[in-house]
Amino acid sequence: MTRKVWRIGVAGLGTVGAGLLSLIAERPHFAPAGFAAEVSGVSARSRTRPRPVDISGIPWFDDPVALAASKDNDLFVELIGGSDGPAKIAVETALRAGKAVVTGNKALIAEHGAELAAIAEAHKAPLLFEAAVMGGTPAVKMLREAMVGDEVEGVAGILNGTCNYILTQMEATGRSFADVLAEAQQLGYAERYDPTMDIGGFDAAHKITILAALAFGCAPTYGAAEIEGIEAIDAIDIRLAKDLGYRIKLIASASRSEGGVSVRVHPTLCPLDHPLARANGAVNALFIEGRQIGRIFLQGPGAGAGPTAAAVAADIADVMTGAVRPVFQAPARTLQPFAPVDASQQVGRAYVRLLVKDEPGVIAAVSETLAEAKVSIDSFLQKPVEDVSGVPIVLTTHAAPEAVIAEAVRRMAALPVVIEPPRMIRIARI
Amino acid sequence: MTRKVWRIGVAGLGTVGAGLLSLIAERPHFAPAGFAAEVSGVSARSRTRPRPVDISGIPWFDDPVALAASKDNDLFVELIGGSDGPAKIAVETALRAGKAVVTGNKALIAEHGAELAAIAEAHKAPLLFEAAVMGGTPAVKMLREAMVGDEVEGVAGILNGTCNYILTQMEATGRSFADVLAEAQQLGYAERYDPTMDIGGFDAAHKITILAALAFGCAPTYGAAEIEGIEAIDAIDIRLAKDLGYRIKLIASASRSEGGVSVRVHPTLCPLDHPLARANGAVNALFIEGRQIGRIFLQGPGAGAGPTAAAVAADIADVMTGAVRPVFQAPARTLQPFAPVDASQQVGRAYVRLLVKDEPGVIAAVSETLAEAKVSIDSFLQKPVEDVSGVPIVLTTHAAPEAVIAEAVRRMAALPVVIEPPRMIRIARI
Repeated sequence: MTRKVWRIGVAGLGTVGAGLLSLIAERPHFAPAGFAAEVSGVSARSRTRPRPVDISGIPWFDDPVALAASKDNDLFVELIGGSDGPAKIAVETALRAGKAVVTGNKALIAEHGAELAAIAEAHKAPLLFEAAVMGGTPAVKMLREAMVGDEVEGVAGILNGTCNYILTQMEATGRSFADVLAEAQQLGYAERYDPTMDIGGFDAAHKITILAALAFGCAPTYGAAEIEGIEAIDAIDIRLAKDLGYRIKLIASASRSEGGVSVRVHPTLCPLDHPLARANGAVNALFIEGRQIGRIFLQGPGAGAGPTAAAVAADIADVMTGAVRPVFQAPARTLQPFAPVDASQQVGRAYVRLLVKDEPGVIAAVSETLAEAKVSIDSFLQKPVEDVSGVPIVLTTHAAPEAVIAEAVRRMAALPVVIEPPRMIRIARI
Repeated sequence: MTRKVWRIGVAGLGTVGAGLLSLIAERPHFAPAGFAAEVSGVSARSRTRPRPVDISGIPWFDDPVALAASKDNDLFVELIGGSDGPAKIAVETALRAGKAVVTGNKALIAEHGAELAAIAEAHKAPLLFEAAVMGGTPAVKMLREAMVGDEVEGVAGILNGTCNYILTQMEATGRSFADVLAEAQQLGYAERYDPTMDIGGFDAAHKITILAALAFGCAPTYGAAEIEGIEAIDAIDIRLAKDLGYRIKLIASASRSEGGVSVRVHPTLCPLDHPLARANGAVNALFIEGRQIGRIFLQGPGAGAGPTAAAVAADIADVMTGAVRPVFQAPARTLQPFAPVDASQQVGRAYVRLLVKDEPGVIAAVSETLAEAKVSIDSFLQKPVEDVSGVPIVLTTHAAPEAVIAEAVRRMAALPVVIEPPRMIRIARI
């Protein structure tokens, strides 16, 4: 580590990659460890696409894997994206060459993190990915470094800005999910061609998988995540939840119990005065619960070229310090996948909305069904809503095993007075 | 760095020191870099004082400086406290021996940080102090490491849990500052013998001085901080502020403008829906404003044996990674003290409370005085309050240079209708 200039290869020149190039061009000595950064090679799909930064003076590589293998850089930055294909091959190539890798690729780390960590540690090459989660807000550093003196019990937060923006707009305007999504796509807040990664909860699941691996010292196990997106959230649910004192958020959470790790993404009713309920717009927010430290709350921008490029730069600065740490919380050879938790341990409260026929005995039928399923009611609201045939009933339950609540919902769905399948949304335990 | 066990000397065995000993005893492999921690020597004022952890098997040093010099430890933890005396001599001794030092001593770092950084860097010895600010909440790591890819424009927050607890209790009970302080002292939330460090704002000033040095790459310059505590906050101010939509908090802030650095601690009116207004009880909270990243908010426990010991442990883990960084944001030899900012640049809004005689023409006299001083009024409230002779008037100003507002307050104080010196409290700019 006696070199004074770190030569950096950057693969992927979208908004974040271009932002990084600008940052380094303006501040080559941004890292305080006494080294300078110099971009010594770039690769992207198109060389000629208009960019806010001039790349004509930087050596060009058509193939990111060739850039990763080149002896002309010491540190490889991967901003291509995608869990497989060229991104993965390039990262493996750089690590095998003993090069430090900095990536913002959440899918890659969530799906292949343990395998890459093993390669990284075998070749003594750091592998850092701050920009993969919460953009410019240092959630990864927090869990990887600041919590090591403690034992993390759980993390929960809002990790997808697109969903949070859509839910915030649905509440503000009263418009439908489809309308708000279409507008978000036009404005560039949601992917135009296929927004499924965001609205289906998969992007948040990638991120919480990474945070869970760091929090609990496990191999990231994306396949173990339970995932539910926001596509089925109706404007009426947002309105009724608010009448009950809640706001619907897409919450990604991970917790450890009895040796198992539970990782989930689903719409959740958060009490209106809860910090997660108050995180509106494209912001990201995270709670970390430590056994000693208690609760830490972190909020900030979850995306954007500037913040995300700054996170990549912070990782580059970390590489320059020469710090040696395992990629996750323990050496790669010891990492275990998330062990499943006992499903009967998943206990929680729920919001259930039913559309029922406007006739006598309906409330009795619903409440008897719940009582038979051994679910007790916490609140009950029957409220006429315009433009809806039938009468919406909304109730919240006391805490019960999730399987018991699911069975109660199934029984209610089968009642002749119930017009359409009931809508169940979990209530935050936090 | 080939040793597998780090031998740690711990000086100071109060609640945090004892908490650290318990933590290491329970989890000698807490640090993920592949090393173990072993406490190889301790020093404290009393060897026999009852402690929650057994120290009989650990070599004892009467003199912390002898422990710092001993060849039987590789890393020295200083938890003695105090800006001078044995703490400073011990830390200097350890650094001169080339040992890593981890300290929770905010006074030491705020008052002698640059001098110690120079010794540390000359001897290639890391000097870390996460536990000095916000206890278990990693504010130091955030500014030292996560923001290096960005330029920090300002930080502002609640850094003293005792003051925040007292202000919260004053609001909740309507009781006086003196009453609530006396109770806090009895309950152990405030120092029994001399609570001045906390309530006078000096503790918060030490902490914001450290954060400012990290944020702006300067030498910590405690003497440059403007400091005002909460002793003069009346119950009536808390009540009237709330009527106007604000909560009074002791806010520590630092900002950079035109080459100068402004560091201040003073009571501040925060809008009720602002995250800092909502941080109640003994909690700490911090905003960091980055040019690229925008606004990051961090909240968590600011004190307590468990959280603070966990922060010390996280620093020990950082030392074990072998990372080489400057102590502050730039090499010690380049650090400059905080340059003063142009006072006329300090512009803000203010809350002013007056106690006036109950006679005609009073409001005219007050408002004319303000108009003559070129301060314009944003809101004006005259409200009868029981148990007070005279009539309280409270007003908020529009933004104006602070010197102009101060002059207006002086003129109002001189009015014959004004019974006692007006009370001015700044309104948050955030």
